[in-house]
Amino acid sequence: MISDMIKEFPALFEESMQEFIPTAGMRTPVIDEAMRYSLFAGGKRLRPMLMAAAYEAFSGEPWEQSQLLRAFMTALEMIHTYSLIHDDLPAMDNDDLRRGKKTNHIVFGEDMAILAGDGLLNAAFEVMSEAADRAQERQSDAVYAMTYLSRASGVRGMIGGQAIDVSGQYRDEKSVLAMYQKKTGALLAAAVVTGAVLGGATEADQHLLGIAAVKAGMAFQIQDDILDVTGDEEQLGKPIGSDEKRDLVTYVTLTGLERSRQDADRFLQESLDILDRVEGDTAGLKAIIASLAGRSF
Amino acid sequence: MISDMIKEFPALFEESMQEFIPTAGMRTPVIDEAMRYSLFAGGKRLRPMLMAAAYEAFSGEPWEQSQLLRAFMTALEMIHTYSLIHDDLPAMDNDDLRRGKKTNHIVFGEDMAILAGDGLLNAAFEVMSEAADRAQERQSDAVYAMTYLSRASGVRGMIGGQAIDVSGQYRDEKSVLAMYQKKTGALLAAAVVTGAVLGGATEADQHLLGIAAVKAGMAFQIQDDILDVTGDEEQLGKPIGSDEKRDLVTYVTLTGLERSRQDADRFLQESLDILDRVEGDTAGLKAIIASLAGRSF
Repeated sequence: MISDMIKEFPALFEESMQEFIPTAGMRTPVIDEAMRYSLFAGGKRLRPMLMAAAYEAFSGEPWEQSQLLRAFMTALEMIHTYSLIHDDLPAMDNDDLRRGKKTNHIVFGEDMAILAGDGLLNAAFEVMSEAADRAQERQSDAVYAMTYLSRASGVRGMIGGQAIDVSGQYRDEKSVLAMYQKKTGALLAAAVVTGAVLGGATEADQHLLGIAAVKAGMAFQIQDDILDVTGDEEQLGKPIGSDEKRDLVTYVTLTGLERSRQDADRFLQESLDILDRVEGDTAGLKAIIASLAGRSF
Repeated sequence: MISDMIKEFPALFEESMQEFIPTAGMRTPVIDEAMRYSLFAGGKRLRPMLMAAAYEAFSGEPWEQSQLLRAFMTALEMIHTYSLIHDDLPAMDNDDLRRGKKTNHIVFGEDMAILAGDGLLNAAFEVMSEAADRAQERQSDAVYAMTYLSRASGVRGMIGGQAIDVSGQYRDEKSVLAMYQKKTGALLAAAVVTGAVLGGATEADQHLLGIAAVKAGMAFQIQDDILDVTGDEEQLGKPIGSDEKRDLVTYVTLTGLERSRQDADRFLQESLDILDRVEGDTAGLKAIIASLAGRSF
């Protein structure tokens, strides 16, 4: 059952991550603690789960059996986690709570939170480089996957999206979607594409998967905007209506709830349709995406 | 003349960097501007210069002729630059000036400075990954060099040193030196070792070079502490006596000027002695190190 798998995945993945995390050692236990605090602060582990599903679609091997893949899953979650730590800082979104827990700078102080974020971003590339260094005949796939992921997390992707967000350069539907595509879509696409690369997908399939993942990312992001208006606080891990209180422009504030629901459904359906055209066995991937978008499948 | 080379290097290197810098594009010109502002804010370009000299010691080829090396030189300077941007933030050292110019957050705001730092750290790995992806028969050397550099810039190296610094866990000579070794020495060692790896040095030589570079780093760092007491503001690019004003513990405050001068000289001499035992032609490397330590050679 996919729904059981989605529930069980986080604990399995968290156990798998332990093998890869670099530590500063005895003189600086606090930065190790700060990095682990956020890395193990829960969450659905959506990005590594998508990477694992994409890998399995092409390799036919369970994700647990590939150390190379598990290194990349860990690295991806480190990148996602560092971006949350820095996003929550007083100079950025100034959030005290994330998933119902105190944010990193509330617990460890702003200086250590900046360093913990830097440490996790750097660690992601330590983990991937080390995995590529060990990869032998898979080395060129590993290097290509690292290149793809590094672009998606940089100024051409996630950080570029955060820069649009911070500078407030989005006041219409089109520019909000462009921001979402970079800020959220790029890393989701990288999750799926790098999983497929490591699993041995063709270039044509890699390309289709990237488009499908960006569309799924749009659906997830619009759904987040909807939940901020209609959800409950427990589900969100933060107060309801926080977007509106901050006067944030979101897809919902621009187009209304009804249009947002329709468009999220449309993006999701387009994503699933594209996955049907892929040669690998994308049943698991489709089920995860549909399930996470709150639809049974 | 080495002294001419040291003067001419920065302009040549800055020209060489232009080829590699990723850009966010039209929706977010400000993050591109913020990253370039600090990347091109001057400085001796010590780390890439050491990397180039180590490369030349073993390859026999001028640094300008290796695109792979130039990518790694750029990446190293991006890592050094991001660490300065984040170090200068209000929550860290809270510096308004760096090398006589306004710091990044003064010009672009704290939020954009955090992102520009993140963008440069990420870009360093984009540049190295892309270079490794193109490296063909040099790929395994490139991956090994990237692994070495990523460890040196992470919690086992530079970020670990910054965490010791921030947490104030150094109150004696030994722990100050341990902090310097991580905060400054690790990245200098990586500069020399990765240059040597890409230049084709043996493992034995890589090892010797790493030790020599850490010792040179100690000499440079102690010399910085001395300059903070005895230098002039123009040379430093910041006010004299700023360490003392902040009640900072440095090697000079712990051991006094006389001992500090002796120990800097000793570290430098040990570094040069080790370089004599290396098989490659380290004359250029030795001349740069001795020259930068303010001694004629």
